[in-house]
Amino acid sequence: MANLEFIRKLVIPAETKIVFLVMDGIGGLPMREGGPTELEAAHTPNLDALAAKSICGCTILISPGITPGSGPGHLAMFGYDPCRYLIGRGVLEALGIDFDLQPQDVAGRGNFCSVDEEGRVTDRRAGRLSTEKCAELTALLREKVKLPGVELFVEPVKEHRFVLVLRGDGLASDLTESDPQQLGVPSPPIRPLEDAPEPAASQKTADLVNNFIAQAQEVLKGQHPANMVLLRGLDKRPAIPSMREVFGLRAAAIAVYPMYRGLAKLVGMTALPSGTTLADEFAALERAWPDYDFFYLHFKSTDSRGEDGDFEAKVAMIEEFDTYVPRALALNPDVVVVTGDHSTPSLLKAHSWHPVPTILHSRYCRYDDVVKYSERACVHGSLGTFPATDLMPLALANALRLTKFGA
Amino acid sequence: MANLEFIRKLVIPAETKIVFLVMDGIGGLPMREGGPTELEAAHTPNLDALAAKSICGCTILISPGITPGSGPGHLAMFGYDPCRYLIGRGVLEALGIDFDLQPQDVAGRGNFCSVDEEGRVTDRRAGRLSTEKCAELTALLREKVKLPGVELFVEPVKEHRFVLVLRGDGLASDLTESDPQQLGVPSPPIRPLEDAPEPAASQKTADLVNNFIAQAQEVLKGQHPANMVLLRGLDKRPAIPSMREVFGLRAAAIAVYPMYRGLAKLVGMTALPSGTTLADEFAALERAWPDYDFFYLHFKSTDSRGEDGDFEAKVAMIEEFDTYVPRALALNPDVVVVTGDHSTPSLLKAHSWHPVPTILHSRYCRYDDVVKYSERACVHGSLGTFPATDLMPLALANALRLTKFGA
Repeated sequence: MANLEFIRKLVIPAETKIVFLVMDGIGGLPMREGGPTELEAAHTPNLDALAAKSICGCTILISPGITPGSGPGHLAMFGYDPCRYLIGRGVLEALGIDFDLQPQDVAGRGNFCSVDEEGRVTDRRAGRLSTEKCAELTALLREKVKLPGVELFVEPVKEHRFVLVLRGDGLASDLTESDPQQLGVPSPPIRPLEDAPEPAASQKTADLVNNFIAQAQEVLKGQHPANMVLLRGLDKRPAIPSMREVFGLRAAAIAVYPMYRGLAKLVGMTALPSGTTLADEFAALERAWPDYDFFYLHFKSTDSRGEDGDFEAKVAMIEEFDTYVPRALALNPDVVVVTGDHSTPSLLKAHSWHPVPTILHSRYCRYDDVVKYSERACVHGSLGTFPATDLMPLALANALRLTKFGA
Repeated sequence: MANLEFIRKLVIPAETKIVFLVMDGIGGLPMREGGPTELEAAHTPNLDALAAKSICGCTILISPGITPGSGPGHLAMFGYDPCRYLIGRGVLEALGIDFDLQPQDVAGRGNFCSVDEEGRVTDRRAGRLSTEKCAELTALLREKVKLPGVELFVEPVKEHRFVLVLRGDGLASDLTESDPQQLGVPSPPIRPLEDAPEPAASQKTADLVNNFIAQAQEVLKGQHPANMVLLRGLDKRPAIPSMREVFGLRAAAIAVYPMYRGLAKLVGMTALPSGTTLADEFAALERAWPDYDFFYLHFKSTDSRGEDGDFEAKVAMIEEFDTYVPRALALNPDVVVVTGDHSTPSLLKAHSWHPVPTILHSRYCRYDDVVKYSERACVHGSLGTFPATDLMPLALANALRLTKFGA
């Protein structure tokens, strides 16, 4: 994998355009021995025709056998080392509700939970309270809890989940969690990690979060089952150089769900108005075409149906996506990449470690013999099984946006 | 990629011989969708027969998507990390005119240029003056310019290009350039780079080069359009351990062009008298056969015709090379490698990032199903797409020149 500093020095200006068509969780598995995967079962004439004029392979997002979360999966796809740029759980949760996280903010993932009279956790999710109740309780906390010297945000997510954000000077992350991950014990106080690089700032932040928890427990006293909070994944957003800085690209994201828009914004993309349907997303691509060099178009439903374990529904989503591919090709992009941020086999109902079938099409791609967009076809492509972080350098090369290295 | 220190400890003596047959820029692309590459179009019965008894693959010289210059391409082919051993532009230019660069020399690439009365650059190439004029002006500079405490070389190259070499104690590179890379502005003075490891020596060298530039401007006053010089790529030759040291090989280079002879000398090869034609080069191989363990035979024309964009001519060059392959095989080498330092598709008229088809033949090579020397055939070989720096360890292993690692 070439590092970003290395790539940055080779970037040259160009007028060419690159499109990444990303089907979330696209890779799959057969449901029964000898059966097809979702992609193999799907009728995808447009993707297959594109594969036939492309160089294909399967990406490894992190390393062999490692299942990517959405954060690292996306960073790898965008060319960033996912083991170097870590996105904390709290940050991802904040991105997921479209919270405009600032560089100095510390964000944490909160749960409402139940504790007994001795403060021992009896239900880590407070009986999965309703999303309405969650909104009511977060409003209560916002109103009642006061922390010295920092601005406080308590934002509802879904059911028992909320996001806590502290905004102020001199905060740091590198903190332990207050969620004991088991029942019958009290939640431990937040502490700086032993190797925290800024121990004083981490201690200050821990004190503030513990203060928040203590006040929250007071405020929630009569609210059983939601009579306490647990906090984990407290972190700042990582300082990631933008795609403009490292790749010289004006980059735009087309995605319906806030989390993916947030991930794209972390690497400096502009998140375009994207509507709610695939038709909306491709219309957004067409509208924005003159104004950007790089487009990331994200389709969520392949992952969602995989997580449901609904093989047939995932097949249908793939087939729907396929019908839109010609609209992207009609724009005459210089480079088209079709890929995903991880696999989500219906069989597993979850993200998985399996390599992700990937197409790279350009006039200069030296295409291979692959004529079908699927796991088993793409693994025989000329890209073989390769690190996803190589995709961006390859896309830039095929867009004639990199000069040669050395004389 | 195994590093050189690791390999060096495993090297054992042997009587075996290794030949690298290198077609410069051999990899190509189809000129039209669905068409053949240059190699696929070429009739190469000898290379195909060799591929059938070999293990094949495609090399990546630097990393995916990165186009190699000739310097890094060759270093990678010879087993040296091209991102660790950097060859400055001035050094490559000096090698290209067969200048005998010493380890302490600082070499820079010079341009004659035009400046107006205020010293602003009006033509970075002085109207591409003739090579004869260049020789005349460099002779003038050699005669008139005097620098204290160092020996000075000013050598003509071609048209507006020359090489400047400073020889003396206590010089260092890590310098900025005086070429503003744009018109209408004066050329900036040379300065040490901010992170120069030997700032005093770099400052001393910068002062000497600036002194040279000032005197040159005086000397060239009446010579418009060539009334000024620009300097860039000032560097020392990198300190590279020799192939004898790290691989235990007495290595010889057979190459017509000075730059490739120079690159080979950088890694400690003996550059043999090689004539001017392929027949001369193979005759040189036959003559020197008893005296060396490793032979690098370089063929330039495949790259040249690719850079011309002349597909048919590149095909013809490949076919010519093919006819000579039996002469190398007749010497009964223990290991034969056929490869290139980069691709030069006629379609792009330039070096490119595409992996380079590669053959490795030996009695012990566990050969694969590839029966054709081409891009799309070799990528299905058992070596797959692999780092070029793995070639030397593989060649040494197949020559039974490496002992096992660990007990």
